[in-house]
Amino acid sequence: MDLDPARAIADLRELAARTGGPDGARRVCWTPEWEVAREFLRERLASLGGAAEVSVDAAGNLWAVVPGSTEDTVVLGSHVDSVPAGGWLDGALGVMAALEVLRGVAAAGSPPPRTVALVDWVDEEGARFGRSLLGSSAFAGSLDVEAVRGLRDADGVALDDALREHGVELEQMPSAGDRRLESLCAYLELHIEQGPVLEEEGQPCAAVAGCVGVERHRVTFSGRAAHAGTTPMDRRADAGVAAARVILGLPEIAERHGGVCTAGRLDMEPGIATAVPGRAGLLVDQRHLDSEELAAMLAEAAALWDSAGASENCSVRAERIWSIEPVPFHPGLVALAASACADAGGRAEPLPSGALHDAAELARVVPAAMVFSSSVGGVSHSPAEDTPEADLERALEAYGALASRVIEEGVPS
Amino acid sequence: MDLDPARAIADLRELAARTGGPDGARRVCWTPEWEVAREFLRERLASLGGAAEVSVDAAGNLWAVVPGSTEDTVVLGSHVDSVPAGGWLDGALGVMAALEVLRGVAAAGSPPPRTVALVDWVDEEGARFGRSLLGSSAFAGSLDVEAVRGLRDADGVALDDALREHGVELEQMPSAGDRRLESLCAYLELHIEQGPVLEEEGQPCAAVAGCVGVERHRVTFSGRAAHAGTTPMDRRADAGVAAARVILGLPEIAERHGGVCTAGRLDMEPGIATAVPGRAGLLVDQRHLDSEELAAMLAEAAALWDSAGASENCSVRAERIWSIEPVPFHPGLVALAASACADAGGRAEPLPSGALHDAAELARVVPAAMVFSSSVGGVSHSPAEDTPEADLERALEAYGALASRVIEEGVPS
Repeated sequence: MDLDPARAIADLRELAARTGGPDGARRVCWTPEWEVAREFLRERLASLGGAAEVSVDAAGNLWAVVPGSTEDTVVLGSHVDSVPAGGWLDGALGVMAALEVLRGVAAAGSPPPRTVALVDWVDEEGARFGRSLLGSSAFAGSLDVEAVRGLRDADGVALDDALREHGVELEQMPSAGDRRLESLCAYLELHIEQGPVLEEEGQPCAAVAGCVGVERHRVTFSGRAAHAGTTPMDRRADAGVAAARVILGLPEIAERHGGVCTAGRLDMEPGIATAVPGRAGLLVDQRHLDSEELAAMLAEAAALWDSAGASENCSVRAERIWSIEPVPFHPGLVALAASACADAGGRAEPLPSGALHDAAELARVVPAAMVFSSSVGGVSHSPAEDTPEADLERALEAYGALASRVIEEGVPS
Repeated sequence: MDLDPARAIADLRELAARTGGPDGARRVCWTPEWEVAREFLRERLASLGGAAEVSVDAAGNLWAVVPGSTEDTVVLGSHVDSVPAGGWLDGALGVMAALEVLRGVAAAGSPPPRTVALVDWVDEEGARFGRSLLGSSAFAGSLDVEAVRGLRDADGVALDDALREHGVELEQMPSAGDRRLESLCAYLELHIEQGPVLEEEGQPCAAVAGCVGVERHRVTFSGRAAHAGTTPMDRRADAGVAAARVILGLPEIAERHGGVCTAGRLDMEPGIATAVPGRAGLLVDQRHLDSEELAAMLAEAAALWDSAGASENCSVRAERIWSIEPVPFHPGLVALAASACADAGGRAEPLPSGALHDAAELARVVPAAMVFSSSVGGVSHSPAEDTPEADLERALEAYGALASRVIEEGVPS
């Protein structure tokens, strides 16, 4: 197969020219500008001269399928939707990479040994209605329609009304995978890292080991609000000091287990200069690729906030506000991806993904793997998002080699 | 002199009945309900049968003067104004104590050896316009009219308009002390502690050594906002962790110097669960009765926030948002007050006051001292503010004895 990284990058530049500008990408799902991006993709697919059969499934995901010698289907995809004022690569890179692979398959003339499909998942970002991974979760069978039915955008428009304007019936979304799911044999996605690791290591690309699991809690310390001037230090029950003990202890827990822990917000009450905080609410986010390590990190954090409260005479209440299990990718595919990245001049060891991706939904139902390109400064969801073209080329090469291998040889056991 | 603590407490109960209720005291200065409290005070002063000459100075402070054998004047006072939903004792206790001493002086029949004056300072609380100690600072010559001229209340009413409705011209306030200041020989004030120390020690009352000085800073740490999932721990510049180091270090500084340090508020940005805080703003309040100790505490705190920033790769900016020098009271008067408290069954050692009082303004221009009664739970500025009657009686006895001694013998050198 003939994969041309420069052509994929030219497609990305053209897409950015049509749907971006100085204020970044404007491809929020279920908007006219997103339809412009989709129209661009259809144009490019049409230039394959009928080699690919284009369709939209019940969830609104766009498919382009090149039939192979068997129905076993290798799916290549990502998403063209973006956040408001987003970057030119987040999502679009993976779709244009899939397009480039499809071009190579179509140009070969004879049917590939496996069917090859490009997919553009709808609403990965959840930018308008707050629910991420909408199209891929519908396809993979994990979307609970009842849980999203009440969603409205900032203008009060209901999710199902917005979907209907774009030809999608919310009720029908879970049937998106009905015909196709059983024929899938692998899912492969190229994406930008959205983190600083590859850039700082001077690596253009890497395989992704999986998507980390998340434990997110709100921890509330209740002590005793008191006058900052008249209350001696030894008579205080300072909820802010208790919370600070947790903020300082979290990095140690993360480093002990090789995960990440973040305290992103602390609300003290009454929250004024002249009062000892009687209450302090802390947001704690913990992530790890291994579910046992994640559970161990949470147990240590819970012991930490209990002891921090006790040492400051504060009571402690912890509420889990979100959690998701880690999603490890298919070990055989990850190994292939790592080998392809190393061959392309990238990192030999896989990285965990700290963010979620459509591949995490697909990994529930089919062997899946991802390749990351570097991200300048680790920045994403911003007009400043970027990746050097040289790194994009290496990442596209690695992804193309991985896809070729899986199309030729299938998924290693 | 015949001082009757029970009569002073009965006056306080009657004042509370007229201007309070289940939602606490309603005597916010420059309101009709504050005028009700003033009218109550005028009634009680009238019952002295003309022994006291009642007047209002240019700042709106109410005076009642019993002339003595000399013009040397011992001033006894506090404030009848309150915060909204305040307590029955904050301020009013000191005015009713002064009234009770005046009754004793008047009942003696012959002129006291020194002139004795009761004063009810206006707007100690600054509850409506945000400027505390308004009347006492005007009298003591430290009010900057230009600095308060623009103040407005929550409804947009200008300070000078509100004052004019109550017969006070803002421009004239600084002349309040013109005639009287040079004849003053001492200022004595009884107040509730508004802190937990006396209650926890089982003491009804104590002398006050002075009002602590305050150093208040806003410390801003600037690191790098980053994705909580994709940014490894060793690549972070977490402004929240830097701030937490300061929060945890402040109690050690306070205890080393015998002062108090408080971190009352921490604002992290972007302030969401999924982002490493790139910026964190911390309010730091430090107080000590000794100016050298206060300066040493500030120097240690500054070293702490500099090192905390450096250890987390954050830059640090500290702005002083308020500071006031400590105001020690007159050592001879403090010793007399401590002796009177010990004699009344109270604490023999003076306490520092962590809050400001009118006495701090008076101490700039005349020998001053204070007596504290205990406060239940250290609570003030709340309908729950209270002091056991037995403690009020001991505190009133001590204050009465102190006042008698100073009226008889003057200020010890």
